[in-house]
Amino acid sequence: MANSNRPSTTTAHIFRGTFIHATQQTAVQILEDALLGVDTEGKIAFIRKGEELDKVSQAFGFSPSKVTQLTQHEFFMPGMVDTHIHAPQYSYIGTALDMPLLEWLNTYTFPMESRFKDMDFARKVYNQVVRRTLRNGTTTACYFATIHTDASLLLGDIAHKFGQRALVGKVCMDINNFVKHYKESSQESHEETRRFIAELLEKKYPLVKPVVTPRFALSCTGALLGELGEIAKNNNLHIQSHISENVEEVKLVKDLFRDSKSYTEVYHKFNLLTDKTVMAHGCHLSDEELVLFRETGASLSHCPNSNISLCSGLLNVRNVLNLKVKLGLGTDVAGGYSASMLDAVRKAVETSKLLTIQDPKHDTLTFEEVFRLATLGGSQALSLDNQTGNFEVGKDFDALRVNVSIPDGPIDLVQPEEPKILLEKFLNMGDDRNIVEVYVAGKKVVPFTELTEE
Amino acid sequence: MANSNRPSTTTAHIFRGTFIHATQQTAVQILEDALLGVDTEGKIAFIRKGEELDKVSQAFGFSPSKVTQLTQHEFFMPGMVDTHIHAPQYSYIGTALDMPLLEWLNTYTFPMESRFKDMDFARKVYNQVVRRTLRNGTTTACYFATIHTDASLLLGDIAHKFGQRALVGKVCMDINNFVKHYKESSQESHEETRRFIAELLEKKYPLVKPVVTPRFALSCTGALLGELGEIAKNNNLHIQSHISENVEEVKLVKDLFRDSKSYTEVYHKFNLLTDKTVMAHGCHLSDEELVLFRETGASLSHCPNSNISLCSGLLNVRNVLNLKVKLGLGTDVAGGYSASMLDAVRKAVETSKLLTIQDPKHDTLTFEEVFRLATLGGSQALSLDNQTGNFEVGKDFDALRVNVSIPDGPIDLVQPEEPKILLEKFLNMGDDRNIVEVYVAGKKVVPFTELTEE
Repeated sequence: MANSNRPSTTTAHIFRGTFIHATQQTAVQILEDALLGVDTEGKIAFIRKGEELDKVSQAFGFSPSKVTQLTQHEFFMPGMVDTHIHAPQYSYIGTALDMPLLEWLNTYTFPMESRFKDMDFARKVYNQVVRRTLRNGTTTACYFATIHTDASLLLGDIAHKFGQRALVGKVCMDINNFVKHYKESSQESHEETRRFIAELLEKKYPLVKPVVTPRFALSCTGALLGELGEIAKNNNLHIQSHISENVEEVKLVKDLFRDSKSYTEVYHKFNLLTDKTVMAHGCHLSDEELVLFRETGASLSHCPNSNISLCSGLLNVRNVLNLKVKLGLGTDVAGGYSASMLDAVRKAVETSKLLTIQDPKHDTLTFEEVFRLATLGGSQALSLDNQTGNFEVGKDFDALRVNVSIPDGPIDLVQPEEPKILLEKFLNMGDDRNIVEVYVAGKKVVPFTELTEE
Repeated sequence: MANSNRPSTTTAHIFRGTFIHATQQTAVQILEDALLGVDTEGKIAFIRKGEELDKVSQAFGFSPSKVTQLTQHEFFMPGMVDTHIHAPQYSYIGTALDMPLLEWLNTYTFPMESRFKDMDFARKVYNQVVRRTLRNGTTTACYFATIHTDASLLLGDIAHKFGQRALVGKVCMDINNFVKHYKESSQESHEETRRFIAELLEKKYPLVKPVVTPRFALSCTGALLGELGEIAKNNNLHIQSHISENVEEVKLVKDLFRDSKSYTEVYHKFNLLTDKTVMAHGCHLSDEELVLFRETGASLSHCPNSNISLCSGLLNVRNVLNLKVKLGLGTDVAGGYSASMLDAVRKAVETSKLLTIQDPKHDTLTFEEVFRLATLGGSQALSLDNQTGNFEVGKDFDALRVNVSIPDGPIDLVQPEEPKILLEKFLNMGDDRNIVEVYVAGKKVVPFTELTEE
């Protein structure tokens, strides 16, 4: 159990009960009857054994009566990290899944995203998506917005208002041959990106930061990709994009960027692969490309719902992990039809099982490993693992209070169950009803307060 | 629109609004502003246009004020038919999914099922599973129980008490080499089957009937299979079993029944393939075997969650439909980790998309086709389509009142949407919260009444 003897007189919360999280060594570590304290900065001040209450309460200067005791069917787990979600696409989630990627973009996505120049429409959808993902237990989200700077800034404001940890990207695209009104000039794109970054940073939101966001190689000229690589480098910013999602896309990139050896080389050439880069999908990457990910420290966001729903392909996560590339999970709303990371967990297990059906020698991912990907893995993929991802002293307390057995909830228990069974049932069958409280940086953000109620 | 001019003075319910169902010709037929009347026998008395209210109310002798008007985000759809679910396995649903079929049976399933000799345990689990499936919109369920006759009868009582339409099978198995205390002698098996059938029929439950249930070829001697074929034939009963779920199982059946050309021939030889037979899975059936299904009128229950979760295989539903074999969907709790037919719908679409990923020429199932499989298809697979499956005059009113936009529900709408979009969002993202009322044979069974509350 992690330990700290640093005394403090400013403990904001103390919880006693079962804590379940992932560490580098253990995919699922279960701490039964643990005592966890959160300081007034929202950081985890201590994790100790419940039986040490008297000693700990003296050391940290709190009264034992301040301790919140979890019930038998409850546990805390780290908040989940959605490493890839398109906030504007929440407007048509759960529909329009009858086409492959490139047709889908032209037919549904670009026309819908172009509506986000309308700030009222943007406000409505962005309020919905932030509230929904928080309720679903997404404490950290890495968002694509649209090409519209002001609406993208609004998404940052809304994430801040609701208390979600977020990376927010104004989308950059200076090529669009099919929906011609939904693109920017190259100059607009990098100028507006500079404005977006400057204005968002100026707000000094503690949990909301800008991320440089070229849509993908097919939507951006080399000149624009180069500019964006420069901007990210000069400001030490996060970068996100898409890579190798669909076979046709890979082929087109190859045709378009003839001087690059691979899709990965295209981004690498423009300084877009750094240890703060997360690339969505990667279904069709070669091992050589994955090695370049590892060498640059760039990570992958595995979006299994989207990859199945758009018939894009199946990422072999086992291979990615074997090659020591950082990897998190993403919902990829609305190529994925669910805004819940629980769905991403289920679909990641399923995708791995499908690879086992195709090849019985495939080493199937366990639910424990996928739990790690949804929490600690996501924080590593976003290079935020010094702040969040598990319950280590000094990290922010980003956590879900889960009750597996709530009235009118989705799970029935016949008998009391061990924590690991409770976790497995929650991951397979649970939903937002089981997530009774959500904390980000020590602040309870779900249930919503009057301030955050619409 | 179906029509009836048979006047009646005994209309129990009249609803006005959107009705969505499947017909033989149309996977999704949408009736906007329709008027549907249910008679006191629970049968659909008429389906007419809303504008005909005055004429219809005169013909059927009801006051227009008796009409229940659906709201903008609501529609009625037929109740869903779960063609394959193991009621006792609900006790460990959502866990124990880390082994292939035969190991899984020996390690988890047989030991757990053996606990159902305890009637108190059985009562608890069977109450849970019937309530849960009804809440989830399963108006008809085809249940496997266990080898225990009295507990199996209890499952029938509980389905009746809650008002669910059900086929209930006492499981027959006189071979079990691994969990030796969980089997019967051949004589016990067919004698207890006779007692089960006689006692269940004696109760004269209108909606609950027995189904002859050999577990599968590997659990039954040829002698027992033959007896069960006789029993079904002499009493004109339904039959259910499993077939061709997993490659190892198929191989073992081939080794064990050397005089049969195929797995399907084994059942056929013992008169177990009839037009009232439903066989679960069939992932690895040859076209020749599927033709034998068509010729005998036997049907398949496609259980995609289970087939993925146990790494069993992927059924090519398109091929089954092209060969004109009847097919419904099943949850296959607890090989499947969800007791919701909405999950079966999603996973059936996904399985078809996976086949498209493997072979881009595969003709992917649409969500509309899968909606048909979950409703009308299921009723056909169970040979109950003269009573249920869609909104035709004369059929029982088995229906779900769906509200896509309920407070604290799982779906957000940005704007009013067409019925087909509402259906698609519900199928992809909805859950029991959206199913505000469930009717079976005209009786409202959800929300539960005091009588059916535990």
